[in-house]
Amino acid sequence: MISALLYQAGEILKKDFYESGSSTSKERFDLVTASDINIEEVLIRGLKAQYPDYSIFSEERGEIDNKSEKKWIIDPIDGTADFVFGVPYFSISLSLEINGEITEGHVYNPISNEYYFSSAETGKAFLNGEVIKVSGTCAVEESLIAFGFSANYPYISDYYKRWRHLFDNCKKGMPLISPALTLCNIARGRIDAYLDSRCSMEGQAAGALILQNAGGKLLNYDLGKYDHRAAGIIATNGNLPVLL
Amino acid sequence: MISALLYQAGEILKKDFYESGSSTSKERFDLVTASDINIEEVLIRGLKAQYPDYSIFSEERGEIDNKSEKKWIIDPIDGTADFVFGVPYFSISLSLEINGEITEGHVYNPISNEYYFSSAETGKAFLNGEVIKVSGTCAVEESLIAFGFSANYPYISDYYKRWRHLFDNCKKGMPLISPALTLCNIARGRIDAYLDSRCSMEGQAAGALILQNAGGKLLNYDLGKYDHRAAGIIATNGNLPVLL
Repeated sequence: MISALLYQAGEILKKDFYESGSSTSKERFDLVTASDINIEEVLIRGLKAQYPDYSIFSEERGEIDNKSEKKWIIDPIDGTADFVFGVPYFSISLSLEINGEITEGHVYNPISNEYYFSSAETGKAFLNGEVIKVSGTCAVEESLIAFGFSANYPYISDYYKRWRHLFDNCKKGMPLISPALTLCNIARGRIDAYLDSRCSMEGQAAGALILQNAGGKLLNYDLGKYDHRAAGIIATNGNLPVLL
Repeated sequence: MISALLYQAGEILKKDFYESGSSTSKERFDLVTASDINIEEVLIRGLKAQYPDYSIFSEERGEIDNKSEKKWIIDPIDGTADFVFGVPYFSISLSLEINGEITEGHVYNPISNEYYFSSAETGKAFLNGEVIKVSGTCAVEESLIAFGFSANYPYISDYYKRWRHLFDNCKKGMPLISPALTLCNIARGRIDAYLDSRCSMEGQAAGALILQNAGGKLLNYDLGKYDHRAAGIIATNGNLPVLL
């Protein structure tokens, strides 16, 4: 069971989160690297035991190529900076790619205990077993929009140049750095759109499937047809016109 | 017991958080207002029962003046935008002011179950009953710094103009909008500094006492002696030179 594996890894990540702090800077940064690598190891070990013939791609280790058309894609901590800053908005993200298509996506926040799931087979998206769907928001003035930046001024300026009509006119814009959870928050109808120029395959693949099967729409950041292997994403509830 | 009151209010807030989403935009925004007001009512009712002679200041209701030198200051949801966006980085913040001085501070995140507390009497700061202290980070290059902005470009530009040496040189800068929890994250040593030009008395008073009693330092945003009634804050671990 993939969910059992994620709950197991989540227990470890939760413990690391609560124990961080009151340490020297060096210890703190070591802790993060240790958590990233530790969670990754737990997942790789579990996946190898359950799916010995599949390939695996993970953020730190890279590709474990078993010459299979089936590949697990792992992001051990999606939202590492949140984890370090003490913001419980991070997740373990896992997706299955078969012949280049994502067929299964799992996103789990162990602190809030929110487990999102979707599969091509069900064609639906779920939060802790309940079906979820996107919001009906179709006016920019009423919309909640997430932008994928931290306090890096050159990136922020680039976002503003391109998305000024959204920055200036949406109901509220927020900088959020965890693509997996943010895509899921559109999928469940909490927010309406998300723009990220740099998020990676590991960070976005699972959340993208979950959003699509909840009624959302996706594009690559260059406006091309959505491909989870391309860096960056434009994601909406399918109702909001983000492109002018 | 103040803590029992906060745990009670926290259960309500937690329920509201998990139930949000998959609703229309209108319902969603109503929910937030309802949560803010509902939590405030629970706290005011509880405080009036336990401290009938004290004054109360709260974000939505304003001042309930009992001509007392003792006043409870309430922020029912510190980090409302996080709450709405589905980011479990928000708290209930409560502080006691006696003759203009903060003598007690409580900050509680009901999702992560992190309860921060300090009092003038103990002279210490606590997380879930354990003493906490600030980090030893003293080099900007090693520091984790939070800035109090959302995706509002004019504010971001103002921050960048003033704090460019931090934006460009710190180890990682993050935009975080919940002053109470962010001050507590400095207090426990997870992060090293926080700069916010606009945070209010309700948002900062409890966290500021907690940080001071964990070894941190505070200034008003205009560089004056720290006063919790002035909007804005400059907060550090006491070791990091944020001012050039």
